[in-house]
Amino acid sequence: MPAYRLYCFGESGNAYKAALMLQLAGCDWEPVFVDFFKGATRDAAYRAEINEMGEAPVLDHAGERMTQSGVILNYLADETGKFRPDDARGRRECWRWILFDNHKFTSYFATYRFLKAFMPDSDPAVMKFLEGRVKSAFYIVDKHLSAQDFMVGNAPTIADLSLAGYVFYPIEEHGIDIPAAFPAIAAWRERIKAIPGWKHPYELMPGHPLPKAAG
Amino acid sequence: MPAYRLYCFGESGNAYKAALMLQLAGCDWEPVFVDFFKGATRDAAYRAEINEMGEAPVLDHAGERMTQSGVILNYLADETGKFRPDDARGRRECWRWILFDNHKFTSYFATYRFLKAFMPDSDPAVMKFLEGRVKSAFYIVDKHLSAQDFMVGNAPTIADLSLAGYVFYPIEEHGIDIPAAFPAIAAWRERIKAIPGWKHPYELMPGHPLPKAAG
Repeated sequence: MPAYRLYCFGESGNAYKAALMLQLAGCDWEPVFVDFFKGATRDAAYRAEINEMGEAPVLDHAGERMTQSGVILNYLADETGKFRPDDARGRRECWRWILFDNHKFTSYFATYRFLKAFMPDSDPAVMKFLEGRVKSAFYIVDKHLSAQDFMVGNAPTIADLSLAGYVFYPIEEHGIDIPAAFPAIAAWRERIKAIPGWKHPYELMPGHPLPKAAG
Repeated sequence: MPAYRLYCFGESGNAYKAALMLQLAGCDWEPVFVDFFKGATRDAAYRAEINEMGEAPVLDHAGERMTQSGVILNYLADETGKFRPDDARGRRECWRWILFDNHKFTSYFATYRFLKAFMPDSDPAVMKFLEGRVKSAFYIVDKHLSAQDFMVGNAPTIADLSLAGYVFYPIEEHGIDIPAAFPAIAAWRERIKAIPGWKHPYELMPGHPLPKAAG
């Protein structure tokens, strides 16, 4: 059995953060498919035995089970020594952006894309509210990336892998033209893609993307 | 000058997380008032010089400046040795709940309360959407706290201080009857309040609460 087992599914950019780290750090891992769209994470057994928060990803390693992509990223950075700044200040900066990501960047974008791609009857007022929040968060990250190649220091870190969770999903799923509106994020996205071993979430994790999402 | 300076304001439960930690850990600190309601955090100078994320809290200590309440809580736990589990697993559990707090618990509740208390013309569809998200997150924490006194282990930790950020604001500001709907959260809130030195956010930080929020 591989050393790492990750509960995940292709449509989850939060799971992708952990899967991409496992992939780019060269870990021996396997995905465990979570059938989110059939209600797997809402299931009482999943909540009782796997994650009381009702979420993916979940990582099993060496008898430890952990959840929250930010916890998993930091654990893997410590275990592998990869995508991890050498100094305490750099590691705090990673946490700072990972928290911003969880609170505002991924959070609003993932919810917006989920409603847009998978819940076609969502209320327009809610979509407009979320779109405003997405753009505010993207603007802050775009500004930060207009002055440097990666989020913390000069090399990619787990902060980049966290923020990159949802940015590779096709525009058909969310409708935000990233290169037009946020050119620094688009350029950074290409730099992440150029890291040896990079794969798209739909290649890296099992799932069943909508036909319209395949492009 | 005190060892710690915290940029904060009374209405910010995110700032309160850091202020409460400074207070309960017995740190030598002073608040620096951020006039959020006059646009201080949206100001270009604030974003350029204090926090590019346009948020409070911000902590200055020993020549270091840091932002994000989760970063500040972990830094203060390491500096003071207080509200910090002894083992790596416990510290990961703290991060796990701090991330859940930033992503779903504080995040939706703070936004819901902000719109309700301070933006009276908010769209009812948006309020309904947020209320559903608040209740899902509160349900998970209430269930967790029905089986144990504090979030991680047997004693209060920074995970509790993070989740407690907004729960002391008066019901008039958010309209959610916590004791009726989430009895385990209400009981835990009393346990936090009983920690020696505890103060309400409006006592601990400068600000100008609305008259209706004074109760």
